Amino acid sequence: MSTSMRAVRLTDHRLVVSEEPLPIPLPGEVLVRVLVVGICETDLQLIQGYMGFRGILGHEFVGVACSGRWSGQRVVGEINCSCHACETCRSGLPNHCPHRTVLGILNHDGAFAEYIAVPERNLHPVPEDVSNSQAVFTEPLAAALQIPAQLPALRGQRVIVLGDGRLGQLCARVLQAEETNLKVIGRHPHKLDLLRPLGIETALESDATPDHSADVVVDCTGTSSGWNAAMEWLRPRGTLVLKTTVAGTQTLNWAPIVINELQVIGSRCGPFVPALKALQQKRVDVEPLISARYPLEAATEAFELVQQRRVLKVLLDVAAE
Amino acid sequence: MSTSMRAVRLTDHRLVVSEEPLPIPLPGEVLVRVLVVGICETDLQLIQGYMGFRGILGHEFVGVACSGRWSGQRVVGEINCSCHACETCRSGLPNHCPHRTVLGILNHDGAFAEYIAVPERNLHPVPEDVSNSQAVFTEPLAAALQIPAQLPALRGQRVIVLGDGRLGQLCARVLQAEETNLKVIGRHPHKLDLLRPLGIETALESDATPDHSADVVVDCTGTSSGWNAAMEWLRPRGTLVLKTTVAGTQTLNWAPIVINELQVIGSRCGPFVPALKALQQKRVDVEPLISARYPLEAATEAFELVQQRRVLKVLLDVAAE
Repeated sequence: MSTSMRAVRLTDHRLVVSEEPLPIPLPGEVLVRVLVVGICETDLQLIQGYMGFRGILGHEFVGVACSGRWSGQRVVGEINCSCHACETCRSGLPNHCPHRTVLGILNHDGAFAEYIAVPERNLHPVPEDVSNSQAVFTEPLAAALQIPAQLPALRGQRVIVLGDGRLGQLCARVLQAEETNLKVIGRHPHKLDLLRPLGIETALESDATPDHSADVVVDCTGTSSGWNAAMEWLRPRGTLVLKTTVAGTQTLNWAPIVINELQVIGSRCGPFVPALKALQQKRVDVEPLISARYPLEAATEAFELVQQRRVLKVLLDVAAE
Repeated sequence: MSTSMRAVRLTDHRLVVSEEPLPIPLPGEVLVRVLVVGICETDLQLIQGYMGFRGILGHEFVGVACSGRWSGQRVVGEINCSCHACETCRSGLPNHCPHRTVLGILNHDGAFAEYIAVPERNLHPVPEDVSNSQAVFTEPLAAALQIPAQLPALRGQRVIVLGDGRLGQLCARVLQAEETNLKVIGRHPHKLDLLRPLGIETALESDATPDHSADVVVDCTGTSSGWNAAMEWLRPRGTLVLKTTVAGTQTLNWAPIVINELQVIGSRCGPFVPALKALQQKRVDVEPLISARYPLEAATEAFELVQQRRVLKVLLDVAAE
């Protein structure tokens, strides 16, 4: 093992591919040799200044554990590194630990690198019949699966997903598997085209007239226009699920929340075990979402591409198995 | 009965005391001779343009029914006039009827008048031992009681009420009666002084440092600073209750909702029967909230007074019993 590695570092709103020392695992952490990483909307927000993060980006990865229980095996990793000792952790909410670091997001270097240090307890082995290109979707798929984890009675409910991008695509697939009465509203015909073969009803935003009929709206736009549309789509006492962390403030109208006694819930990281199982059982098909792959050295080009509207998931191939 | 009456009409952001024809009850409605009415924050919002209402203002009233089942008796009235036939009504949410009118708020003249027409089924008789000055609080007290109606497991929860005004005072009294672990945070020492004799912990906003410890925050400020403070007070997975309908848009930061997986719920009108019972059983003491009383003719002065920060509830005495 070399003592240095290539990595993608965020400094002052700028990405640089740099030579870095290998991460030094903290107690309880193991080194993971990264194989494939995915670029996420949150990475774009971090570059915009969200969370004030400086360091190595990247939190969607599949790699090979270099030591510990899963040594030599392919693994994916949960991103919240929690203390597991405080009141919040002991109350069953370790993902909300106030002392946590978060891989590639908060005080912990991420996975756009040849190696990443990850708490061993965060790792999950990847089943043999799940490819790297599938496994790299485990983290965002788990985030989508957090919706049924928070709203267990979705079956048969009238659900609208706003947004046909990376996150909207995954949420739609999960909510279709949950047998909801689903419609996805987006702005990109070719992205909506990916959903119809799955039996998912879709509509272009310009063609859809909100009618206060939805039980649940899932906002995957992260914009005030998504919020305002949700207010028009939801029935009284309906639920708006916010999935996107966005930098800065939004101009929102809150009167409809009160008038219609709506519920708004935030939804962040989700459960990895059901995500891996969904991938293994082919219940959620993720590979059609891959728009492009780049080597790690071409990360800045990959980030330029991912900001184009027509593009869905962009992967970085860091190493061969 | 005269064929005309005095009333307070809202026209183009301006209030005028005018001579009006008596309201003509629709089928199912009865005339109520108004005794006392209260001025509410919503009235001030309506004057600012909220809902685009034009007509006779006023929705907090006690009066005497002129006909029907409660003829000659003192009554209070629920404000939502629903069709009781549509899907929403039949699903048990008549307060959310899409065809509803709302007394003094939406397509229905209100109670700042000698007479108001009210659906008979909206009326509740006032127990003998509840005075007019108490009964006029039934509607806003019911709105405060909507909080425990929506969140039934409040006992022992750490609850913070933001705002020491009219609504905050009533919510605090209700939440104290629910045996929550309560703190009220406000900006007016003399208003907070009304709460401490009730055993309620209070703090000036300038002295209180948010610490992500609250299970529930009830916003009674209707301002973005209330929203932002709530984000800082709530524990992960905590609940923000929005009680105030405000005109226009607010500049809000929604990332904390997602990061901390908060729940935001809107809470509007509440149940009248428990409100009347709470008044009758003296479980909620409302009369200390009365800052001033005016005759109906002096309504414009009353509205000037009620906008002053030191003032709580202002009543209009329309008629003697």
